[in-house]
Amino acid sequence: MSERDTDAQVTEAERAALDLANVDEAARNDALQSMADAIRAHEDEILAANEEDVEAAEEMLERGEYTQALVDRLELDAAKLDDIAAMVESVAEQDDPLGETLAARELDEDLELYKVAVPIGVVATVFESRPDALVQIAALALKSGNAVILKGGSEASESNRVLYDVIREATEDLPTGWAQLIEAREDVDRLLEMDDKVDLVMPRGSSAFVSYIQDNTQIPVLGHTEGVCHVYVDEDADLEMAEDVAFDAKVQYPAVCNAVETLLVSEAVADEFLPGMVERYEDAGVELRGDEATRDIVDIDPATEDDWDTEYGDLELAIKVVEDVYDAVDHVNAHGSKHTESILTEDEDAAAVFMRGIDAASVFHNASTRFADGYRYGLGAEVGISTGKIHARGPVGLEGLTTYKYYLEGDGQLVATYSGEDAAPFTHEDFDAEWQPGRLSGE
Amino acid sequence: MSERDTDAQVTEAERAALDLANVDEAARNDALQSMADAIRAHEDEILAANEEDVEAAEEMLERGEYTQALVDRLELDAAKLDDIAAMVESVAEQDDPLGETLAARELDEDLELYKVAVPIGVVATVFESRPDALVQIAALALKSGNAVILKGGSEASESNRVLYDVIREATEDLPTGWAQLIEAREDVDRLLEMDDKVDLVMPRGSSAFVSYIQDNTQIPVLGHTEGVCHVYVDEDADLEMAEDVAFDAKVQYPAVCNAVETLLVSEAVADEFLPGMVERYEDAGVELRGDEATRDIVDIDPATEDDWDTEYGDLELAIKVVEDVYDAVDHVNAHGSKHTESILTEDEDAAAVFMRGIDAASVFHNASTRFADGYRYGLGAEVGISTGKIHARGPVGLEGLTTYKYYLEGDGQLVATYSGEDAAPFTHEDFDAEWQPGRLSGE
Repeated sequence: MSERDTDAQVTEAERAALDLANVDEAARNDALQSMADAIRAHEDEILAANEEDVEAAEEMLERGEYTQALVDRLELDAAKLDDIAAMVESVAEQDDPLGETLAARELDEDLELYKVAVPIGVVATVFESRPDALVQIAALALKSGNAVILKGGSEASESNRVLYDVIREATEDLPTGWAQLIEAREDVDRLLEMDDKVDLVMPRGSSAFVSYIQDNTQIPVLGHTEGVCHVYVDEDADLEMAEDVAFDAKVQYPAVCNAVETLLVSEAVADEFLPGMVERYEDAGVELRGDEATRDIVDIDPATEDDWDTEYGDLELAIKVVEDVYDAVDHVNAHGSKHTESILTEDEDAAAVFMRGIDAASVFHNASTRFADGYRYGLGAEVGISTGKIHARGPVGLEGLTTYKYYLEGDGQLVATYSGEDAAPFTHEDFDAEWQPGRLSGE
Repeated sequence: MSERDTDAQVTEAERAALDLANVDEAARNDALQSMADAIRAHEDEILAANEEDVEAAEEMLERGEYTQALVDRLELDAAKLDDIAAMVESVAEQDDPLGETLAARELDEDLELYKVAVPIGVVATVFESRPDALVQIAALALKSGNAVILKGGSEASESNRVLYDVIREATEDLPTGWAQLIEAREDVDRLLEMDDKVDLVMPRGSSAFVSYIQDNTQIPVLGHTEGVCHVYVDEDADLEMAEDVAFDAKVQYPAVCNAVETLLVSEAVADEFLPGMVERYEDAGVELRGDEATRDIVDIDPATEDDWDTEYGDLELAIKVVEDVYDAVDHVNAHGSKHTESILTEDEDAAAVFMRGIDAASVFHNASTRFADGYRYGLGAEVGISTGKIHARGPVGLEGLTTYKYYLEGDGQLVATYSGEDAAPFTHEDFDAEWQPGRLSGE
């Protein structure tokens, strides 16, 4: 029963995607503005539904099944709702990710090939229990011309249902069914099987959750699994700068994936660097663990082998003394999660060894790992962070929700002309022009 | 036993990939030239091994287990071997797909972000029983700095083993283990499980085979499953041009994925167009099937519903009369395989409806579907054709074997500076510069 419903929803989304791909920028932005307006106009209704979710969550909290943090994330108020509406408006203001001619090439006279950015098609998301997630994802999908399947956490089900209804009503001018809400867990299992109709899944939430999705679908997944990031203090580091950066990378916000988890220190500067660094971490409440060489210098708990592979996501840090930059590179490539790595050094050659040698989405020189973020990178609206290497890597902007289409404009050319003994040659000359449907640029 | 071997091979490849990513263009091209030279120098050895494969295949042919076509594809001679060596040289001559700075952006003063093209890492390929496939794939992987796992058809095992040894010897200066040969079927199953170490699989062969790989691995797959391509003859088509293009799209080479499988004809021109077209197809030996409206005009066999979804890959074609361009778009979106579609029309608006409305990797206007090909598109060496929409779509050049890395050059910047009440703003200004490791561009 429910399986049939999910099939029908996904099929409707697939059809809507074909039409949505051809809705122009102005109409998509108008729809986003309507979304923002409707969210503000339906404030009472949304907050009432949210209160139901929060009350249910508080009961679970009393029974010890939910955390206070979950309840806090769930709860909306008028100010938060206005922020959500403003976020939708900011998505509308982004540059259009669609329609751009990425390349134009003359294959032969009056035979012109254009590569043009288009939406991916049907994007599915399974996300955490923050009501703003549903709105954000719907806005990003709409801006990039994709139909979207939305599945939120059950804790937010009342809020999500009302927000979804508000969005659907506000975007009635768009192709019917461009956004679909899925509520039951078993519908997600069915969704993950539909790799013939769903083009991309974006799971949001814990690393374990993203891994679960990856292991249970053939649909390409855009998501990040974990961030075991390192800061390496080289023998030629400016040690004052190094202390500030290593501190910022851990303490500024330890719960996020781009925070540092292991500090590597060159043995040439460990004696000089570690005592002050450790004192500063300890003053900030950071729990420290170190290898033997570290513990010969500072009095902290011993690290186990597991520590080198652990994403603490908290005020905890492992410290290791390494021989040199090559040793640091080997450690990072063995234990890192290919997320974000940083070297502190004034030596260009050491920087080159580290940056070139490490396989990670982001490799920094003299900067905090915490800069690895779509907003800080200037990508505009952040779609997600990818720890995969295919399609998109690291922080992903709206471009990550697009693919491309090749358009070929001819005047009756045959492949037979370019084959066999007297094959005509191709010219293969790139030129600058936007694709105009149905027209050769020279006409 | 064998499982442990595969693990060891893939682990060695993973390590080699880290080093290979930093082998410069000249060294990679030198290694390709050595490969080409060694193939020519070891002609006798390679042809002797190939003869063993061909003899074994001929026995299977006599027993009716192999086709003559398979034996033909398998067989090498001196001329074919020289072509293979020349192909390796042509890969060396391609533009370097690595190292290019794809974007450079100032985030703030002396805080510079660079997006640079890098290899994907470890690429695995499972390919058909043509000995040239092994060499071609190894050459493309090397050019793009990727370690490669090679698994060929068992029919070519003797040829592949010798070719692999020749390649390995010729590229001894490269990181050890950059190319690995896998021979047993069960090793492939193990390989497909290793999604933590293998970054991309490129299966080559039949659609069914590619689908099998997709269904049995979590590793991203670059491949194409099928090509159910259409030619639509619009009411405003130049009918002479349409006849030539529709003929070329089927007859010029019917066995390939970009050949047309269904011809759609606007009802406004069907009476005028079909009799001549059908006669020309029949003269060329094309077996035709049509819907009722077609058969009211020409005397051909009836088409069944299955025909609309069939990739014949042979001199067979289905014909359908449609109302107009919208009806054609609906038919293609329902039955096409998102590969390549072509409209014949002199009406720009009809062309726009067709090209924008169809979801396919390539959509053509007044040109044969057979142009959908990496060589004809001017992509240089063709890595494959993708029917997926993620990472790469349609014909894929060497760029499809690359991803990117973000490099951030700073002078000690902290995220704390850009957060909270007195957050410093980002400048986010794009600039033109190549990344230089360890150096800020302004210095």
